[in-house]
Amino acid sequence: MSAEAPQAYDDLLEAYRRVSNVESAVGVLSWDQQVTMPDGGAPARSRQLSTLSGLKHELLTDDGIADALETLDRSELNDEQRAVVREIRREHERAAAVPQALIEQISAKSSEALEVWESAKADADFSQFAPVLEELVELRREYAAAIDPDRDPYAVLFEDYEPYLGLETAEQVLERLRDELVPLIEAVGDSDVTQPDPFADGTYSEQAQEDLSREILTRIGYDWDRGRLDTSSHPFTSGNQFDCRVTTRFLEDDPLSALTATVHEFGHAFYNLGLPQEEYGTPLGSSRNLSVHESQSRLWENHVGRSRPFWESVADDVREAFEGVEDIDGETFYRAANRVYDDNLIRVDADELTYHMHIVVRFEIERDLINGDLDVEDVPEVWNDKYEQYLGLRPENDAEGALQDIHWSHGNFGYFPTYTLGSVMAAQLYAAAEDDLGDLDGSIRAGEFEDLQTWLRENVHHHGARYTTDDLVEVATGESYTADYFLEYVTEKYGDLYEL
Amino acid sequence: MSAEAPQAYDDLLEAYRRVSNVESAVGVLSWDQQVTMPDGGAPARSRQLSTLSGLKHELLTDDGIADALETLDRSELNDEQRAVVREIRREHERAAAVPQALIEQISAKSSEALEVWESAKADADFSQFAPVLEELVELRREYAAAIDPDRDPYAVLFEDYEPYLGLETAEQVLERLRDELVPLIEAVGDSDVTQPDPFADGTYSEQAQEDLSREILTRIGYDWDRGRLDTSSHPFTSGNQFDCRVTTRFLEDDPLSALTATVHEFGHAFYNLGLPQEEYGTPLGSSRNLSVHESQSRLWENHVGRSRPFWESVADDVREAFEGVEDIDGETFYRAANRVYDDNLIRVDADELTYHMHIVVRFEIERDLINGDLDVEDVPEVWNDKYEQYLGLRPENDAEGALQDIHWSHGNFGYFPTYTLGSVMAAQLYAAAEDDLGDLDGSIRAGEFEDLQTWLRENVHHHGARYTTDDLVEVATGESYTADYFLEYVTEKYGDLYEL
Repeated sequence: MSAEAPQAYDDLLEAYRRVSNVESAVGVLSWDQQVTMPDGGAPARSRQLSTLSGLKHELLTDDGIADALETLDRSELNDEQRAVVREIRREHERAAAVPQALIEQISAKSSEALEVWESAKADADFSQFAPVLEELVELRREYAAAIDPDRDPYAVLFEDYEPYLGLETAEQVLERLRDELVPLIEAVGDSDVTQPDPFADGTYSEQAQEDLSREILTRIGYDWDRGRLDTSSHPFTSGNQFDCRVTTRFLEDDPLSALTATVHEFGHAFYNLGLPQEEYGTPLGSSRNLSVHESQSRLWENHVGRSRPFWESVADDVREAFEGVEDIDGETFYRAANRVYDDNLIRVDADELTYHMHIVVRFEIERDLINGDLDVEDVPEVWNDKYEQYLGLRPENDAEGALQDIHWSHGNFGYFPTYTLGSVMAAQLYAAAEDDLGDLDGSIRAGEFEDLQTWLRENVHHHGARYTTDDLVEVATGESYTADYFLEYVTEKYGDLYEL
Repeated sequence: MSAEAPQAYDDLLEAYRRVSNVESAVGVLSWDQQVTMPDGGAPARSRQLSTLSGLKHELLTDDGIADALETLDRSELNDEQRAVVREIRREHERAAAVPQALIEQISAKSSEALEVWESAKADADFSQFAPVLEELVELRREYAAAIDPDRDPYAVLFEDYEPYLGLETAEQVLERLRDELVPLIEAVGDSDVTQPDPFADGTYSEQAQEDLSREILTRIGYDWDRGRLDTSSHPFTSGNQFDCRVTTRFLEDDPLSALTATVHEFGHAFYNLGLPQEEYGTPLGSSRNLSVHESQSRLWENHVGRSRPFWESVADDVREAFEGVEDIDGETFYRAANRVYDDNLIRVDADELTYHMHIVVRFEIERDLINGDLDVEDVPEVWNDKYEQYLGLRPENDAEGALQDIHWSHGNFGYFPTYTLGSVMAAQLYAAAEDDLGDLDGSIRAGEFEDLQTWLRENVHHHGARYTTDDLVEVATGESYTADYFLEYVTEKYGDLYEL
């Protein structure tokens, strides 16, 4: 290391910690807005958030960071330092490349779009939303061009959410899932087997559902000294290695929904709570991108929370929690939690199998929109055609079609694929954990999660953002990122459930 | 106004709004820390708060603000603009005068002092606390000298909390209260009358107390769309004109305590919620200083919440809320809420009358400490002597003596007098409202608070920080600030209660 490197490195870290602390403050204000803030607080909150976002941008693009990065360019660094510099440089360069005025335009247009989207969805009328969506697509194309005018703009946007796997990998995985899941879903639809629904006729109090959620969170290892459970209209996770909170929401007629959501959010929180505390505020103490985050939530939601041994282990609690299911056994709960919905048009209600077809539709449409291969006005028809092609279903209106998700109205294009990339990664990580730990099914059936927790902490959480996504998968599993494990998992599981 | 003034004025407001938004964000993070944050979150939270405080200081001392103020110095401004510039200049100059290093020293020393104080208090041993208190006194003297080396340092510190009434006024008021309340308290002690305690033998569930607090908050006009009620170890209020929240805490054996605290905090919140929304983030949309804030909390706590008509109006609710008080009438509740404790050594448990003697003790001691007329090591004995002199009581140890309050360990000297100045102001404002509105007693007895609310909004809240404290009192009441009304109020009230 050159003589000046240590000082520049320390300067960089100190400057970055301030960026990170402002970002954490934004997280607290957003959590509060969604969980505790009275409705009337919105005007003040949006101004507070706007000031903090502006300050974060100023701190991140500050000359001090630019100078330190330039000095460190000419310095010899160890692996850890190189990783830190790589991450901060990436964030700094992206922020510096985009004019502040464009950021503000996107932000303002998104606020407008959100309102238009809500009203268009209420009227099930995509044509109301089309003009503002077109403007957002154009602004995001400008944004991508500001970062790199020579590359495919959708690839550039995608990297805001998953910077390292590359769009080509995403495309290959999504194509492969489309090719292999469509026939599997058809076979499930053709099967004579139907799964039971022991909760079909009852209503289930919020209090009973909440008590059960808390019990199960405790069981799977949520650290209440560093977390809390609240309700919000959409479940989410917010926080860091000192304080990471989950939310859920309770449906009176479907207690499985809240349980699944809670375990999903636990996976996100358990990741953040496993980041090294001594590295708080630096890339080594920060989570990797959205794909890896989603791998953690999906691993707990699906590989643990929708597994046969899990339902055998919690069956007693479920029977005690709710009236009318006193005679239901673990196997029946397990099957109920894994029904495949061949008549569902809504992504957030989808099962583990059809879910990815919802993603494929969105991915193909937003990629073509951003790259100029699809006109906004044609979105509803293309959307409906693709649903027919991949899921054998045709939406009857735009509310259950192209208007169902909030993402585009937020100006987010390139986010959707990370849901599937994460699910695929979850299967690969779980297979590696099973390989290392032996009889995971047995432990889960016995209600013992410590081995799995330790494995995830040591092989994933502990690294923070030290490795790129692809390297992290390789370090944790010994193999390159692959969809093999996911496809093997769903083929075996649903083959068994539906006697294929 | 000169040609360049409008631009400089707009620039100043825009810059100040950012300061104000960061300050609001600090408020949200602090509220969260005291109400919802899991214990484990403390290390991350303190770093977030430290970054935001540093940013606020940087924004407030920024060249942009300095330049705009300089331009506006040479500009013709209207009254409103002059008020805005006066307030921002004051904040800017104070922040710019004190070296950042000294601010950080005080902040670090206070963190240390807080821990030492907690342990010294647990051991009832002032000598453990003395060294760090001495350092804080010295640092605050430096702080005062940085702002103005030629003035009485305690007067400078006092102005951080009450910038306009002046220390001389505070001294006169406190001396007058000491002179007139000491004999009154003695007379009460000598009286044969004792007030009833209908809650003496029961325990009162938290849920019943909370329900009653909510009912009464609704009754006196709390806007739940812009507020919430939570619990915290010390009751407090946090927020602005869009979102202002109160907390309370429930004592199982004393339901009057939570009720009184809740109504007190309501007074603070009702003030903030009455600030003009269109002026959010500017001095015209900010509350005046601590004395005025305390006048609003004390007005509701004492002049409304400890009044005979108030207890007559809520007696039904209280009887319904708690078991064992079904036969108690409003007069008895009123008397119970106004007992004078002649054996109480603890400020926060004090009644409306003896409270100010607790303040006088602290004021005289901290003034002499800061001005160098008293050594830290002599504080406990002086404290105990003064308690004996003013309240006829002598603390048996330092925990119930000089270690009871947290303020000095926070490095706050000059804060205490605002409690009394606010109470005095409350009486003057209430008398003026009564003068304008006629039979306030009758309205309160009928559970009608609208006239009083409107009067406070129009005469106090609506002005924000447009007027200096003394001018505000004059605008609202038509008279200069005076303790006459307070002394008249307590003399009449306690003369009646104790048949003096």
